[in-house]
Amino acid sequence: MFIYVIVLTQITEQTIMDHLKLIALKDFPLVKPSDNLSLLIAESLQLNRIEIENGDVIVVAQKIISKSENRYKNIKDIVPTKKAIDLGKELQRDPGFIQIILDESSKIISTDKNIILVEHKLGLININAGIDRSNIDQKDDIVLLLPENPSKSAKKLQLDIEKLINRSISIIITDSMTRPYRSGVTNFALASSNIQSLIDLKGEQDIYGNTLKSTEIAIADELSAAAGLLMGQGNDAQPVVIIKGFNRDNYSKNDAINLIVKEEDDLYR
Amino acid sequence: MFIYVIVLTQITEQTIMDHLKLIALKDFPLVKPSDNLSLLIAESLQLNRIEIENGDVIVVAQKIISKSENRYKNIKDIVPTKKAIDLGKELQRDPGFIQIILDESSKIISTDKNIILVEHKLGLININAGIDRSNIDQKDDIVLLLPENPSKSAKKLQLDIEKLINRSISIIITDSMTRPYRSGVTNFALASSNIQSLIDLKGEQDIYGNTLKSTEIAIADELSAAAGLLMGQGNDAQPVVIIKGFNRDNYSKNDAINLIVKEEDDLYR
Repeated sequence: MFIYVIVLTQITEQTIMDHLKLIALKDFPLVKPSDNLSLLIAESLQLNRIEIENGDVIVVAQKIISKSENRYKNIKDIVPTKKAIDLGKELQRDPGFIQIILDESSKIISTDKNIILVEHKLGLININAGIDRSNIDQKDDIVLLLPENPSKSAKKLQLDIEKLINRSISIIITDSMTRPYRSGVTNFALASSNIQSLIDLKGEQDIYGNTLKSTEIAIADELSAAAGLLMGQGNDAQPVVIIKGFNRDNYSKNDAINLIVKEEDDLYR
Repeated sequence: MFIYVIVLTQITEQTIMDHLKLIALKDFPLVKPSDNLSLLIAESLQLNRIEIENGDVIVVAQKIISKSENRYKNIKDIVPTKKAIDLGKELQRDPGFIQIILDESSKIISTDKNIILVEHKLGLININAGIDRSNIDQKDDIVLLLPENPSKSAKKLQLDIEKLINRSISIIITDSMTRPYRSGVTNFALASSNIQSLIDLKGEQDIYGNTLKSTEIAIADELSAAAGLLMGQGNDAQPVVIIKGFNRDNYSKNDAINLIVKEEDDLYR
């Protein structure tokens, strides 16, 4: 009888997930600077009659994090440097906008093809330093920057929501991004809290019993991409998506910000 | 009364998806050359008691497509060219394996960092031409190539399954791939049938009524990444995942093979 119980436990631990459910919060309110996002999410969960269970993942669009943290900049307020003015002429873009991109970046990677590809101060490689001019409820001169410290934002949101609803949850902050080699944008994980970003299967066996050399799966990016399907354009139509059924227990819990590859380790650079 | 009906139709068309459900087929049999994959999937659906509805998306791991199409190669059968022998010495890899990579590729992009980054004949940029040495039930000398024509495989599988179960379905063939700038692999869409690969929101309005300039979402890649969460390592533990609730009606149905970006259009190259 005792042996039976042990075997059952082992099977449970090794059972891989066979289903996932994604639910977008409907009618999520427009977010304004200094809104309490954890409170808005808790209220919306109630209005949507969604029961959060321990282990649920809440995927949140970067844009509403940035809005609640008042990461707006007005291009008109910016005094561009000579570098920004020169680059503005070259690319026929507003030098104030370029100055904001430069301020958000640690280096310019390319200005070919009429875009500015940079290494963002957070380490991300992205176009225009991830700065957004769409889905902003103000004039064309206003832009929205990425959160200053998305890992800190993710951790705070996780703890604040947990306090409000008394469940253990995970948070992923997601943004959409173009990619090398592939058309269109997909959602990726900008940062996360209380969930693994990467599963390293090194040393595990494949289905034929061969030991795998190295297969790291970017779980947080896959969860983000899944949530992106429901968020709508600019991740703004439905900026909060709940993922149920994802088993986060077997893995270490690294912040997704660590999914950024250092240049010397990047096989493509 | 008539007006009421029209209004209702418009609302239905504009309603965005608010949930998705993903289900992996459990105990899917190991696939062997010349297995009838549509039959295996139809049988497994029955065993798993999963009811397919019109519009469901069936995401299938590339590996079982390749296996059913007998895309195995034995490295020992290959006579390497001088180029493969030289490259083999440089990278300390089996020249036969390198010859197979060369045969699958239209050009080598880089051999830095001890990997072979190529443009695959299908247009994909990937490492080792997407050739797999894991999860193969044979000796180390056997490798598995990508399907010769994944778009054709996707179309055939779609039509064959539809005949068997009498429902309108979509097929995505997915593989996992490393990516520039980001750690770990994610699943992407190698090819698809009867589903949009890319949603172009150009001309639509954002939530504040501004017209969007250009936001193409790589839907097929996001669906693949979502399915990848359930497939397990190498996409082989659960190689078939059903996605329910995805609204594919509003969009054109381009094969996901077209998600590959031409070099001149690639903002990162």
